[in-house]
Amino acid sequence: MTIPTPLTGVVPPVCTPLTPDREVDVRSLRRLVDHLVDGGVHGLFVLGSTSEAAYLTDRQRRLVVETVAAHVGGRLPVLAGTIDMTTPRVLDHVRSVTEAGADAVVVAAPFYTRTHPAEIARHFRLVAAVGSLPVIAYDIPSAVHTKLPAALVLELAADGVLAGLKDSSGDLAAFREVVTGARAHPGITGFSALTGSELVVDAALALGADGAVPGLANVDPHGYVRLDRLCRGGDWPLARAEQERLCALFGMVGVGDPARMGGSSSALGAFKAALHLRGVIDCPLTAEPQVRLSAEEVERVGKFLATAGLL
Amino acid sequence: MTIPTPLTGVVPPVCTPLTPDREVDVRSLRRLVDHLVDGGVHGLFVLGSTSEAAYLTDRQRRLVVETVAAHVGGRLPVLAGTIDMTTPRVLDHVRSVTEAGADAVVVAAPFYTRTHPAEIARHFRLVAAVGSLPVIAYDIPSAVHTKLPAALVLELAADGVLAGLKDSSGDLAAFREVVTGARAHPGITGFSALTGSELVVDAALALGADGAVPGLANVDPHGYVRLDRLCRGGDWPLARAEQERLCALFGMVGVGDPARMGGSSSALGAFKAALHLRGVIDCPLTAEPQVRLSAEEVERVGKFLATAGLL
Amino acid sequence: MTIPTPLTGVVPPVCTPLTPDREVDVRSLRRLVDHLVDGGVHGLFVLGSTSEAAYLTDRQRRLVVETVAAHVGGRLPVLAGTIDMTTPRVLDHVRSVTEAGADAVVVAAPFYTRTHPAEIARHFRLVAAVGSLPVIAYDIPSAVHTKLPAALVLELAADGVLAGLKDSSGDLAAFREVVTGARAHPGITGFSALTGSELVVDAALALGADGAVPGLANVDPHGYVRLDRLCRGGDWPLARAEQERLCALFGMVGVGDPARMGGSSSALGAFKAALHLRGVIDCPLTAEPQVRLSAEEVERVGKFLATAGLL
Amino acid sequence: MTIPTPLTGVVPPVCTPLTPDREVDVRSLRRLVDHLVDGGVHGLFVLGSTSEAAYLTDRQRRLVVETVAAHVGGRLPVLAGTIDMTTPRVLDHVRSVTEAGADAVVVAAPFYTRTHPAEIARHFRLVAAVGSLPVIAYDIPSAVHTKLPAALVLELAADGVLAGLKDSSGDLAAFREVVTGARAHPGITGFSALTGSELVVDAALALGADGAVPGLANVDPHGYVRLDRLCRGGDWPLARAEQERLCALFGMVGVGDPARMGGSSSALGAFKAALHLRGVIDCPLTAEPQVRLSAEEVERVGKFLATAGLL
Repeated sequence: MTIPTPLTGVVPPVCTPLTPDREVDVRSLRRLVDHLVDGGVHGLFVLGSTSEAAYLTDRQRRLVVETVAAHVGGRLPVLAGTIDMTTPRVLDHVRSVTEAGADAVVVAAPFYTRTHPAEIARHFRLVAAVGSLPVIAYDIPSAVHTKLPAALVLELAADGVLAGLKDSSGDLAAFREVVTGARAHPGITGFSALTGSELVVDAALALGADGAVPGLANVDPHGYVRLDRLCRGGDWPLARAEQERLCALFGMVGVGDPARMGGSSSALGAFKAALHLRGVIDCPLTAEPQVRLSAEEVERVGKFLATAGLL
Repeated sequence: MTIPTPLTGVVPPVCTPLTPDREVDVRSLRRLVDHLVDGGVHGLFVLGSTSEAAYLTDRQRRLVVETVAAHVGGRLPVLAGTIDMTTPRVLDHVRSVTEAGADAVVVAAPFYTRTHPAEIARHFRLVAAVGSLPVIAYDIPSAVHTKLPAALVLELAADGVLAGLKDSSGDLAAFREVVTGARAHPGITGFSALTGSELVVDAALALGADGAVPGLANVDPHGYVRLDRLCRGGDWPLARAEQERLCALFGMVGVGDPARMGGSSSALGAFKAALHLRGVIDCPLTAEPQVRLSAEEVERVGKFLATAGLL
Repeated sequence: MTIPTPLTGVVPPVCTPLTPDREVDVRSLRRLVDHLVDGGVHGLFVLGSTSEAAYLTDRQRRLVVETVAAHVGGRLPVLAGTIDMTTPRVLDHVRSVTEAGADAVVVAAPFYTRTHPAEIARHFRLVAAVGSLPVIAYDIPSAVHTKLPAALVLELAADGVLAGLKDSSGDLAAFREVVTGARAHPGITGFSALTGSELVVDAALALGADGAVPGLANVDPHGYVRLDRLCRGGDWPLARAEQERLCALFGMVGVGDPARMGGSSSALGAFKAALHLRGVIDCPLTAEPQVRLSAEEVERVGKFLATAGLL
Repeated sequence: MTIPTPLTGVVPPVCTPLTPDREVDVRSLRRLVDHLVDGGVHGLFVLGSTSEAAYLTDRQRRLVVETVAAHVGGRLPVLAGTIDMTTPRVLDHVRSVTEAGADAVVVAAPFYTRTHPAEIARHFRLVAAVGSLPVIAYDIPSAVHTKLPAALVLELAADGVLAGLKDSSGDLAAFREVVTGARAHPGITGFSALTGSELVVDAALALGADGAVPGLANVDPHGYVRLDRLCRGGDWPLARAEQERLCALFGMVGVGDPARMGGSSSALGAFKAALHLRGVIDCPLTAEPQVRLSAEEVERVGKFLATAGLL
């Protein structure tokens, strides 16, 4: 399907359920998709950071896109991440997810290697020129260690290279520059400005974002859909209350002991534990080499769910 | 073949020559291997950062290892990089380079994702447990944004997980801690401590390193082999003079205009331009999205070669 | 005077006008204070980063506080920064600004030295224990290279150590955690949560911030006061329009050529050029070793003012 | 006195002993100076990072320089740090230490504020132009968050701005560029290239450094003087053995529990504990807000001393 221009609403970065031997759990993945569709979300983003794409083999990545695209069957747009270090490797992923049925690709700046703004621009231009799907830039400095400058995003949007931006930088002021810049630019139409934040979705929508890609929407899609609706209706006090409820729920990402594991193990472990506790997926394991949450840590996830009325 | 324990001497990270349409130039790659073998090097490291491994597709990576392993035919040990983000993806590369004929794998800490010392340890342990080749840790904080602690390297060496370290951190004091720690530890034997520096090889060998993996050895293998020999012979004044000659030659990595390109484009572009000017490879192009050196910048590379007596 | 609990509204970080030989220009400073008071601001913050406190000698710092405190004469609360590396040095500044008439001190985490959360907590506790003025934490990771954790701020607030937070981290989600945490905590009352952003003041106030400390309010105090009033009245569409007008005006911080100067020279140079063009201060110079804007760059500042209707 | 050109040998960054109420302990400071002079050192560096200069008030700093300069009485050159954020504040320190009897000033790049290579150059030029003492650049990126480029150091040396470099960057390759560049440059004479490392002094001297400024020389001046002499005599095997003994002794900097304190508390606490255990200073306390070593941690310092034959 063709993605809406702009794409609006809630587009969760879909977790990738794994089996105990850490293969993609296709049945749980389908159930998770149903859970999100039933929650009223407006699109799906597979193979993002929350999807553990950095931990999935190429074969597993392909299986994820095929599974989700087939199961959704065109009811919702399916965006697919192509996380890899440089242009040639990203292009291989673009080919794979295109064949597997994705409707758009989400592309980060080069990483691992030393890079440069001119090379980042060249990267996006080459990916857009070779591929056939719309390209959404993935601004995630915590992972790639460069920030996409607003001026570059706008230049690439005006040139038809970028169809949108998924902003996971945490820098709302810079995101605003893209939002207002895209709106003001005569050569940019239908650009999708999406925030990757879980915690300031109300603020992002208030300043003009088109939609949100919150990892926590795996756990509580209804909450984010409600929040999106309240914001669109201009009911800011209720929107703020809903956002604050979701912020409290997001506290689950901190359950993992920092002496024992990193932030990814803790946050993705908590999302998967929550999905397991809610009966959506069969097994809460995250991919290697992430560290597993303890029973006590999982119990704390359960308390976050209970407080939020989700258990 | 079994790699020596320890591996000593000069082990260049082999550049990957490309054709004008940016496929692996197999004939040039074989000529480059001959050039290095003729120069007297003691091993070859393919698919490292200098090899542009981060820019090569999986198919191209495999072709590189197959080509070099077949061409070397067991005369020298061939180490292969497995640069990727996490354990499952690295394990796919380990399988591929093992099948293609590599003698050891060089493995970096996880990157892109948020990580933790416990997860880094788990990563190396899993890679060593699943693969059949010796594992050399690749400490390259500029790329992966974490530094391997000396204590962790020594712990993994004592447990038989690591067979060596390729240190590209630039932190000679921390490298020394590994070198002296490995020597002093009763449970560690045959550990290969290799410096990735081009510029302080004399110092690294003086403090006890087993060998060096200098990218510039692509351009001047004879120089680094001479330097290695002088150091082993304890002829420090002549070693220093040779090292200083090589430091001056290394200045070529700065020919690229920083307003127009990044450090990788400049440095790898200079190495390849030098190999092209010396008649070793057919085409000096680097992989996308790196920016090409200008004619004037290439000319400056030539002057560095001329000054070093290499043209 | 006693500062309000909480302190609300617009509290500009007051620029420090200099003479051509880079002494504090007391007359211009008084005129700038009048300009701000006439603009309707709710407090003044002297010796912040925008005030070039890092560039002022101790003598100059003291003169600034004395001048402003005397000129304001208790009509508005005067907050004073105490920017220095560690506790003993900060305490000297606390003594000095207290004697000079400040109503509260704004204190950053230790910097230059390697620090630790436990030492940061100890730092704030010691400063609060020794000094007699309310302490507002200054979270400015771009300068001190650590981020104050929300949990630490709340712990110190609950213990009566901190009277407020000036958040210049750019991380609105973390700021929200402090805002909602302070409101929810039974042991915290009258805590002042102030955003240091120029660009998302509407969003910060919408999520519950008490006030804003925007450097650009030197140039356009009326604009920020209007924005504050619109937000308090819940008129979000008009607030957003006003905020967007101010965001466009803020573009002036980028007039300086990045090949020739750093971000401080450009941003503070632009603010002072604007104040000079608007007739508020006599001389637009910034302190050494900052680089001066060119005539053409100043002209561009003028265009920003004209577009905003301020010339 | 006039400092030698170049300054060679061992120039310890002198610890600042404190009383239990954290005033400068003048008697202990004099005893520490005697201990160093008796150890055969070639100069003294007061108010460096190891001296806790970042933690000392201006009054305390002045007292330190006066005490040491008077006690040394011209027998050795006394270098004084001027650690502060920007040019005007550094100039105040330059004046103070000049009056107090220092023979040269050691000056870091600006910090806290956003800076730029052009501004860093301007900073050093202004400091040299206004002050009357030789200026030695202090390259300490871990503290100021910029690295002094070798080309800039050489340019400033050639222009007579810099008399030397104290390199605490840990980047021996970049330091080598300065050492060989200064030697090769026809316009540079008498330049003092000093390494701030404790751990690769042998390597630094082998590649041409003039001297070393190791914090650990407070604890074991005789060891570093011996190391310097062995290096100058070209006795590299014995030099390496001495260096390795000192590296083992340096392990004391890690005694502090990282869950409880930062690296400064641990390292400076260990140096002072060692000086206290050796009977040189009366009280091992470090300045606020550093955390004190526990009794058990001090005991471990004692074991390091015993192993090194210093107790």
